[in-house]
Amino acid sequence: MTPDETVTEFIRRITSHDLDGALGLCADDLEYDNVPMETLHGKDAARQFLAPLVGDEVGVDWVVHQQVAAGDLVMNERTDGFQFGGMRVELPVAGLFRVRDGAITLWRDYFDMRTFETQMAGG
Amino acid sequence: MTPDETVTEFIRRITSHDLDGALGLCADDLEYDNVPMETLHGKDAARQFLAPLVGDEVGVDWVVHQQVAAGDLVMNERTDGFQFGGMRVELPVAGLFRVRDGAITLWRDYFDMRTFETQMAGG
Repeated sequence: MTPDETVTEFIRRITSHDLDGALGLCADDLEYDNVPMETLHGKDAARQFLAPLVGDEVGVDWVVHQQVAAGDLVMNERTDGFQFGGMRVELPVAGLFRVRDGAITLWRDYFDMRTFETQMAGG
Repeated sequence: MTPDETVTEFIRRITSHDLDGALGLCADDLEYDNVPMETLHGKDAARQFLAPLVGDEVGVDWVVHQQVAAGDLVMNERTDGFQFGGMRVELPVAGLFRVRDGAITLWRDYFDMRTFETQMAGG
């Protein structure tokens, strides 16, 4: 797979609740950086963070609006939708991925934390 | 200029305090969307918003870390630095631009508003 295809498949697995499959596309020393939060290092830290966000009990619909790739870099524009029981969250995100030897080594998402928090608080 | 070059030159003009020159690279009906804020339409609205942020009295150093282009789309990852008198602000940003017929028609920046506000408040 090209870097572009790797990221597309990664998002497909995330939205299919296949977290292990998604992390199978990542390097062991994955850097996972939600920019307004602390950077996570390694697959285990990423799994722990993501499990409650993309588990079977959560509705996960992430829509990729644009995706641009060059060399080992991929950037995309998304709306990451979550349905937590009766609560709906839609988060506008710009993501940056670096893919080396077929594995995602960096996943960095830019978003507005308050936009997430306000929706989580039912606002 | 290619779309990639147009965006590079746009950022160069912004950081040279040449706001009119930068807006000269934009379409009249420019859509300027700071995602956590209200979308602005048209060059005049963009000029009014940007003037106090990039004027001669402000230190403006925006560093482009990555830039990826395909077709009429350009995405970049930046740190937008501002020096307002004694106050320093550094804002991590992911930007998306659409360039048509040599003119920027869309400029959309993803960032965390609180990161900006906290620094503006001296935090």
